[in-house]
Amino acid sequence: MTTRVRGVFSPVVTPFNADLSVNFEKLVQQCRWLQDNHVGIAILGTNSEANSLSLTERLDMIDALFEAGINPQKMMPGTGACDLPTAIALTKKATEGNCVGVLTLPPFYYKNVSDDGLFDYYARLIEGVANDNLRVYLYHIPQVSNTPISLALIERLLKAYPQQVAGIKDSSGDWDNTLAMLNQFSADGFDVFPGSETFLLEGLRHGGAGCISATANVNPAGIHEVFATYTADNADAMQARLNEIRGIFQNFPMIPAMKAAIAHWSNDAAWKVVRPPLVSLSEDDQATLIQQLKAANFEMKGLQ
Amino acid sequence: MTTRVRGVFSPVVTPFNADLSVNFEKLVQQCRWLQDNHVGIAILGTNSEANSLSLTERLDMIDALFEAGINPQKMMPGTGACDLPTAIALTKKATEGNCVGVLTLPPFYYKNVSDDGLFDYYARLIEGVANDNLRVYLYHIPQVSNTPISLALIERLLKAYPQQVAGIKDSSGDWDNTLAMLNQFSADGFDVFPGSETFLLEGLRHGGAGCISATANVNPAGIHEVFATYTADNADAMQARLNEIRGIFQNFPMIPAMKAAIAHWSNDAAWKVVRPPLVSLSEDDQATLIQQLKAANFEMKGLQ
Repeated sequence: MTTRVRGVFSPVVTPFNADLSVNFEKLVQQCRWLQDNHVGIAILGTNSEANSLSLTERLDMIDALFEAGINPQKMMPGTGACDLPTAIALTKKATEGNCVGVLTLPPFYYKNVSDDGLFDYYARLIEGVANDNLRVYLYHIPQVSNTPISLALIERLLKAYPQQVAGIKDSSGDWDNTLAMLNQFSADGFDVFPGSETFLLEGLRHGGAGCISATANVNPAGIHEVFATYTADNADAMQARLNEIRGIFQNFPMIPAMKAAIAHWSNDAAWKVVRPPLVSLSEDDQATLIQQLKAANFEMKGLQ
Repeated sequence: MTTRVRGVFSPVVTPFNADLSVNFEKLVQQCRWLQDNHVGIAILGTNSEANSLSLTERLDMIDALFEAGINPQKMMPGTGACDLPTAIALTKKATEGNCVGVLTLPPFYYKNVSDDGLFDYYARLIEGVANDNLRVYLYHIPQVSNTPISLALIERLLKAYPQQVAGIKDSSGDWDNTLAMLNQFSADGFDVFPGSETFLLEGLRHGGAGCISATANVNPAGIHEVFATYTADNADAMQARLNEIRGIFQNFPMIPAMKAAIAHWSNDAAWKVVRPPLVSLSEDDQATLIQQLKAANFEMKGLQ
């Protein structure tokens, strides 16, 4: 049994102004909407374009949510970085503000790095932060980071830092890998969050902790409902509905597509802005996306 | 014809203290030794572990070399980053200090990004720095960045920013690609630097500008000699000797191997320190490397 956080987290998409600066007010507003929909706040993730933001911008975003009264016990900011000083600064900020956890990418510039090198990175991060409240969630997203988190590495880290190493987000999309993590580590209180709601129900049935998923930005209530009622008779039907909606977004580049949907239902075109190297959806793709979502009776309710 | 910089540049390996902080004094000393060996100073490159350093550390390193009187007209710092604010801050610092150029990685977190997104990144970098003295050298290292610089992208950037887009480092190791860049763009004054001295002689014979190579950290005089006398009768024999030495280093992970060689010939074991996710060579590998280098009559002269 774990006493740690469970549930659905959204890697919150980051709203920009026309000059690409962060729109902090709109970020707070979006996080409030997500929180109202029972979804945790995993700002500064892959879908947040975190690596397209400077350290200062990232620290300011965490501060903005603290100051706005977003519950830190519902916050799991992304704090990993290629360099340890940046990762330590972000992780300290989040941990000192009482965030329930941090989601930590491994260093992702060098390729084919060893587990010894990754162990050293995480050990120095944990010891550099030096805070008993730190809860590290590892981040396995090999198709983007090119730096997989192996089962052997998890085992070493759990042995060395059983209190701080709290779980993992598995964004590999490989259910066999997620299941191996669940089978090998979840009994020890290591919480496995699939990186997509596609595996939410199956994960929960095997001891998973919820999910941390891009599309929790656009379909938070639906995804939370599966988490909250996964033993209900209609759970498989609800999961099928989640898959249907996610499938539509996956017809397009995910981050620009989610921003286009938010722009549409909030009637705020500025939401479409992304930072390079990403590009916004074309007008045609935006129209097709919205048409497909409406044809599936999807809408985003309560957006401002 | 180009009036821009030509020659051999070293992506200077970064000396750390035992606690992994940067040893600025030793960095200056190493850059002086490289300069004495006629090699330009490309600090903050891949081999410098630049992405394992914070923005503050990188800015401080550039400042340390300025303050020590290293000639900025021999300096080409690495200033690319996943996020534009960091890339702009570094590029401004280097350009305002009169560096001859900057070597700019593309944003390397997201994969399969479009040329449109990369063009936008470089355009915003150039316009964000807003300095007529800026000379951008693109950085094509697809096996590490996973973000290739295509010929079509170079063409677009040259058309939009003919003054600022000055050249490229091609670290692909693919001579056909280097040759295509030379054939298509060098007549316009776009300078192509192979990313390894393996292609130094062949590059020079096809209009190349020199090279920017890891092993210029350990064999600067030898590599410079080929650059300076490449029309001499013994040029092919000199090139073969460069290849022999590089081949020995390539038997090991390159960055730890170069640091081990510098540690040996400077009699300073602290040089072996790398930041995670890299790891130092094992004692056995260090011994084998030095043995192989000595067997090839290689030594590093004049190191302190």
